[in-house]
Amino acid sequence: MRIDKHLLEQHSEKHLPSHQKKFKALSSILSDEGHDVEAILDRVAAFQVAIPSWALGTGGTRFGRFAGGGEPRSLEEKIEDVGLLHTINQSSGAISLHIPWDVPQDYKAIRQLAASFELKFDAVNSNTFQDQPDQEQSYKSGSLSHTNKSVRDQAIAHNVEVIRHGVELGSKALTVWLSDGTDFPGQQNFRRMFERTLDSLRQVYAELPDDWQVLIEYKPYEPHFYSTVIADWGSSLLFCQKLGKKALGLVDLGHHLPNTNIEQIVSRFLMEGKLGGFHFNDSKYGDDDLTVGSIKPYQLFLIFNELIEGMTSPEVKNPELSWMIDASHNIKDPLEDLLQSVEAIKIAYTQALLIDRKALEKAQEENDATQAQEIIQNAFRTDVRPLLAQARLQASAALNPVSFFREMKIREELIRQRGAKAFATGL
Amino acid sequence: MRIDKHLLEQHSEKHLPSHQKKFKALSSILSDEGHDVEAILDRVAAFQVAIPSWALGTGGTRFGRFAGGGEPRSLEEKIEDVGLLHTINQSSGAISLHIPWDVPQDYKAIRQLAASFELKFDAVNSNTFQDQPDQEQSYKSGSLSHTNKSVRDQAIAHNVEVIRHGVELGSKALTVWLSDGTDFPGQQNFRRMFERTLDSLRQVYAELPDDWQVLIEYKPYEPHFYSTVIADWGSSLLFCQKLGKKALGLVDLGHHLPNTNIEQIVSRFLMEGKLGGFHFNDSKYGDDDLTVGSIKPYQLFLIFNELIEGMTSPEVKNPELSWMIDASHNIKDPLEDLLQSVEAIKIAYTQALLIDRKALEKAQEENDATQAQEIIQNAFRTDVRPLLAQARLQASAALNPVSFFREMKIREELIRQRGAKAFATGL
Amino acid sequence: MRIDKHLLEQHSEKHLPSHQKKFKALSSILSDEGHDVEAILDRVAAFQVAIPSWALGTGGTRFGRFAGGGEPRSLEEKIEDVGLLHTINQSSGAISLHIPWDVPQDYKAIRQLAASFELKFDAVNSNTFQDQPDQEQSYKSGSLSHTNKSVRDQAIAHNVEVIRHGVELGSKALTVWLSDGTDFPGQQNFRRMFERTLDSLRQVYAELPDDWQVLIEYKPYEPHFYSTVIADWGSSLLFCQKLGKKALGLVDLGHHLPNTNIEQIVSRFLMEGKLGGFHFNDSKYGDDDLTVGSIKPYQLFLIFNELIEGMTSPEVKNPELSWMIDASHNIKDPLEDLLQSVEAIKIAYTQALLIDRKALEKAQEENDATQAQEIIQNAFRTDVRPLLAQARLQASAALNPVSFFREMKIREELIRQRGAKAFATGL
Amino acid sequence: MRIDKHLLEQHSEKHLPSHQKKFKALSSILSDEGHDVEAILDRVAAFQVAIPSWALGTGGTRFGRFAGGGEPRSLEEKIEDVGLLHTINQSSGAISLHIPWDVPQDYKAIRQLAASFELKFDAVNSNTFQDQPDQEQSYKSGSLSHTNKSVRDQAIAHNVEVIRHGVELGSKALTVWLSDGTDFPGQQNFRRMFERTLDSLRQVYAELPDDWQVLIEYKPYEPHFYSTVIADWGSSLLFCQKLGKKALGLVDLGHHLPNTNIEQIVSRFLMEGKLGGFHFNDSKYGDDDLTVGSIKPYQLFLIFNELIEGMTSPEVKNPELSWMIDASHNIKDPLEDLLQSVEAIKIAYTQALLIDRKALEKAQEENDATQAQEIIQNAFRTDVRPLLAQARLQASAALNPVSFFREMKIREELIRQRGAKAFATGL
Repeated sequence: MRIDKHLLEQHSEKHLPSHQKKFKALSSILSDEGHDVEAILDRVAAFQVAIPSWALGTGGTRFGRFAGGGEPRSLEEKIEDVGLLHTINQSSGAISLHIPWDVPQDYKAIRQLAASFELKFDAVNSNTFQDQPDQEQSYKSGSLSHTNKSVRDQAIAHNVEVIRHGVELGSKALTVWLSDGTDFPGQQNFRRMFERTLDSLRQVYAELPDDWQVLIEYKPYEPHFYSTVIADWGSSLLFCQKLGKKALGLVDLGHHLPNTNIEQIVSRFLMEGKLGGFHFNDSKYGDDDLTVGSIKPYQLFLIFNELIEGMTSPEVKNPELSWMIDASHNIKDPLEDLLQSVEAIKIAYTQALLIDRKALEKAQEENDATQAQEIIQNAFRTDVRPLLAQARLQASAALNPVSFFREMKIREELIRQRGAKAFATGL
Repeated sequence: MRIDKHLLEQHSEKHLPSHQKKFKALSSILSDEGHDVEAILDRVAAFQVAIPSWALGTGGTRFGRFAGGGEPRSLEEKIEDVGLLHTINQSSGAISLHIPWDVPQDYKAIRQLAASFELKFDAVNSNTFQDQPDQEQSYKSGSLSHTNKSVRDQAIAHNVEVIRHGVELGSKALTVWLSDGTDFPGQQNFRRMFERTLDSLRQVYAELPDDWQVLIEYKPYEPHFYSTVIADWGSSLLFCQKLGKKALGLVDLGHHLPNTNIEQIVSRFLMEGKLGGFHFNDSKYGDDDLTVGSIKPYQLFLIFNELIEGMTSPEVKNPELSWMIDASHNIKDPLEDLLQSVEAIKIAYTQALLIDRKALEKAQEENDATQAQEIIQNAFRTDVRPLLAQARLQASAALNPVSFFREMKIREELIRQRGAKAFATGL
Repeated sequence: MRIDKHLLEQHSEKHLPSHQKKFKALSSILSDEGHDVEAILDRVAAFQVAIPSWALGTGGTRFGRFAGGGEPRSLEEKIEDVGLLHTINQSSGAISLHIPWDVPQDYKAIRQLAASFELKFDAVNSNTFQDQPDQEQSYKSGSLSHTNKSVRDQAIAHNVEVIRHGVELGSKALTVWLSDGTDFPGQQNFRRMFERTLDSLRQVYAELPDDWQVLIEYKPYEPHFYSTVIADWGSSLLFCQKLGKKALGLVDLGHHLPNTNIEQIVSRFLMEGKLGGFHFNDSKYGDDDLTVGSIKPYQLFLIFNELIEGMTSPEVKNPELSWMIDASHNIKDPLEDLLQSVEAIKIAYTQALLIDRKALEKAQEENDATQAQEIIQNAFRTDVRPLLAQARLQASAALNPVSFFREMKIREELIRQRGAKAFATGL
Repeated sequence: MRIDKHLLEQHSEKHLPSHQKKFKALSSILSDEGHDVEAILDRVAAFQVAIPSWALGTGGTRFGRFAGGGEPRSLEEKIEDVGLLHTINQSSGAISLHIPWDVPQDYKAIRQLAASFELKFDAVNSNTFQDQPDQEQSYKSGSLSHTNKSVRDQAIAHNVEVIRHGVELGSKALTVWLSDGTDFPGQQNFRRMFERTLDSLRQVYAELPDDWQVLIEYKPYEPHFYSTVIADWGSSLLFCQKLGKKALGLVDLGHHLPNTNIEQIVSRFLMEGKLGGFHFNDSKYGDDDLTVGSIKPYQLFLIFNELIEGMTSPEVKNPELSWMIDASHNIKDPLEDLLQSVEAIKIAYTQALLIDRKALEKAQEENDATQAQEIIQNAFRTDVRPLLAQARLQASAALNPVSFFREMKIREELIRQRGAKAFATGL
């Protein structure tokens, strides 16, 4: 499904007077405070968030899945859905594929299709947490960390194959989320699991093209409930250190123990030049995979505070980051959820851009916690939505993405095209 | 599959000398300390734990399920598996059914089959957390708490049907685990969800036979990740208070926030005469549904300390309790896991029986925390396994259940009979 | 120290142009969206938060306390400090006393002093968590729950004395934060602790004047680390139910286990007509007692969403609430911290006032989680600070309280008057 | 106070028959299972746990402290108290000093006193989390991480002075628990805090004698409640890597976020050859500093499982470890608490010695989680107390330390000697 540019213009026109009033007011206030509104708009417009191919369908839990309808039935339709999102918000210009859910058959056709939507291919993702039909070895007791070399070899070969697909599509990174772990004390030797995993990852690393990275994700639990091999940022960093400079850590916001100060972890990774990317989502309890910004918008802002500080500080030598959403849409329309998530990410990013860094540095130097809070909360309290809307307006996207999606009855049209029982591959 | 008594005898005979040495030593030590070993053995022998029909197959997570083999393919085979367990340990003399996974077709035949294994029917469980094929209304947005009366009516009717099945089989309780909840702030009005649920439960309650109970389970999250209607013991108690004396709370060990003092909750329910039953399992992070006693055996013991104190104190007026395992066997053989779980429960129970309650009361009265700890840890530190083994020996069960299961190659036999790809219904 | 009104005017005048621009823009936008800005301003102006007498000095931890200077040395100076805050923000029109830290000697003089600052006396607080010099019985092993009747009697008498002080000053409520609990499993019998506490509270309750309330606070741990008698909202509610209609629950935001959905607890208390009051603060780990809104501003907003919904719904019969800050100012200037806290509370309150409740109810009725999120986040994203500033302007308070405090060099003046080593009583 | 050996003998004699019966039974059972009981007894006897000088008095919380009596009033009396413990259990042969609470005046006399009790001096501890009277710079806003070089220099100088004291007494390690952190988002720049701390630690490191180590402790929060510089094992490891081979991590059991798998962290440190020592205690919520083994005895056992595996595996190159208790005795007699703690540590150690490592390795290799659990729980379930008692008996210590302490009325004697209001320095 392709959106007629004309429809976007009609939509924006309708909401224009209200928008202009708000934007004008905000931009005048920000200018008074010394901000360069044009420069901010440029940065907001340039900020793109990749969409994972598995987030386009309804997600579920171990207790069940309540599918919606009109879900993409093929890689092509997934690309179309991301293209749709990008057309609407001009902020989702990349797709991240998951193998074996999205094995491309005709690379050229897939590349052309993506290009027709102005989409790039972000990191490719391997999957050794599930058994595929006709798979020789089972991952029930692990994959890259398995005690049995045959299983490890199969998992290594799979990762290498994923790299190969990625190379064909123009990706530049492999994301490894290794679910390997244990459910019971004593089940495995922690050190040997680490060492077998390291050995496996070294073999995968050896197959990375020169301009590629491998992103090492960490997670404390689920699907295993006693330990995981790459449980925390410390373990992720250890693997990165031992693998080499192409290995970087990946932070998924839902992969932390209760009360973790994630923003400090972001700072630690950046300090070490080892932050590779982000999986955005939100959560209250565990890896809840909720809409970004729906539970802890202030934490999201604080993370962007670190990211912007780190990426702009000359003291920090860190490669470019890979930004991606990784959520599960159990009860919302997946596309609406993604539009809300991208919006939340860009709100936090924009608020963090507004922080008066010189004043903040001064307050920090003087140990003035009251003033430091005033400064960063002043940025957070600012209603930056008119800036995002203006950036979309200038990029010919929808002034209000969710409204546009609903007014155009896009889900209804997708159901008409694909059926009410079209289910996407994924969790 | 039925176990020949002879095999049990052979097995026990083999391990007898080692057992007798241990039992003799322990029983002499306990007698010296004033314990009535025979009386303890009687209580140990009498303690039975119900097995849920859905725990006989391999469990999984939202990321996948790695099935084993030889799983029960029908209600009949599930009863046979529980019968097998009971034959081996003489401690699992009841089965708890889940509707619609276990709809009995021929009540009489089912009752007879169960009786042939000396099994009773424990609480029956309803399921409104999944949609069944051809179900008219979807539970995607809730069931007993739904905004739409038609959905609520369907969920009420289902619960009433579950009661009807239970009556036919001789159950005396309905367990309601209501997964209804929300994933996002603002999604629903908390109070109205509660009130609609209460109204629905009242209609279910009205259908309970006189000698029945309804057990109200609570859980803070999963499958919903922002709120649940019956989130904690306080909410469960409120429903019980409003419904009437046949409504009682049910505690699942995995359904608590981090660091919750579960044993105190047990005491509170007992104090109010409102404890109905238990779902045993173990967990490190959330509702991990691991083997009972595999992670926090001391907590399990402390819970039994409260249970025994409450059930024996004349100040407490609480009905008999319903004991059940509710675990998910993702990587272990389900039957072995259940044998380990029953053993862990009975170890904790037996240790709690050994607590010198008079001395403990004195230490409490004198605010002597050091002595109180000495007393309860003395019971916990005692290796009571010979008592359990002796009780099994006297009941003609296996001296060592897990060893017996393995030595007899029972799983291999089940796979031979049912196939390597026989999967049980369940999660 | 009394602030000359003239200084407030001067300050406001200086910031007026910038404020007016912002207020005009916001109020026009809100009017366009159908809001009655004048009505909102009235509600904002009327909203008052009580200041606890113990929050006027520097707080500490068990590891130490780093005092500031110029802290109030007497009850009179504490009242002056709250008067100062109220003069600056016209939103802190009440003080909450803590006995024995603030025993009034001359009631009439104290009342007159408070009146001269237009301050009321909020709930009075008892203290049985510390031993006072020359106290007969020690609270080391508990107070209202103690095994020894003499200790309980002493604690009851203390609470009655606190009521007496409160009556003289015009308070209408007694807040009981009972720290009683245990540090080790087995140390006490949970049920008997509850029952002794209930018996003690009944005696205190009997002494409440007709128009008084007793507010029952709950807390899961600290200063005891295994159990507390009133650990959670369920226990608090049980006490309230058993005591009678003058007993109500009190929610302190820091008194919950990790990941607790506090807003739902608020809704439950309101549903039962049993919410008595609030202790505002913020926290990341435990009872951190940080500046309100400094860590989880969205949670604060969601709580106010429940409060406004509950207090305005005809279905809910709940008495008026008591709002209070309860924080510990370990590294910030206590008065600045309180100004920031009051501001954060009023921001959340005002944002919650902006929620389009009709639209929200419709979205809830239709199970439209996406739209519900749009509605409540639209309110949260709105920068309402100009409304608060305008309300202050109209009340002759400072346009920007923290700036005013700093520009006027108030702390320096207090140090000059009271000394650099003047320490307030408290924690 | 010195214990007459004769009294120990009398005590042991009284309990001897009961002990011998238990020991004989256990040792016969263990021998049957292939254990070398004599070798185990030797290891148990050799295992010594250091006592911190600050744990000899009553601890408290920010809400208060309920002192006992007879607490040591000087460094000499502290050494006497540890000597007393060591005489009673022959397992506490070292003391760990805290500067400035325990500044030795006459090194030689102190060394002689300690030697008279057969005590060694374990790691010395610095304190930059409190201000001392007449201290030039305040640590209110940090010490080694402070923005102000003068403050950092003072903190560095203090650490160097602590090393100097340690050298005089024969210590071989400096423990740095750095409380530096922040309470509010934005208060400091995380990276710069880290770098300033690293720079400070390098200066301290440069002053370490050749045969010394510096132990870097980590803690996520308290006394600061938003971030700490050394928040987790990952940060501790980073500091150790950057400092050099004499820098090692120190694990305090209470310094972790909820649900942390501490035993895996122990394994990670050992794998990297970077584990320096342990602070034993127990906790349910945070850094509760309860008696070791009073809350999570199984976790303690699992940690010892890792320690023994790591310290005996040829693959692991890790220096000798420093074992210490770090608890706070708020309601128990401190000396009784320490006796219970040492006992709990040695129970866990002994149980871990009993693990059949060959069988466990085989189960792990075969991914047999059921069997692995059987093996380690078999060790945990074994009641090893008779082994500890026997080791004490052979070392002329008390058969039952707590009973001996009570029967001898040691606390009463200490109160008689030192007074009922003798308070030890510490928290």
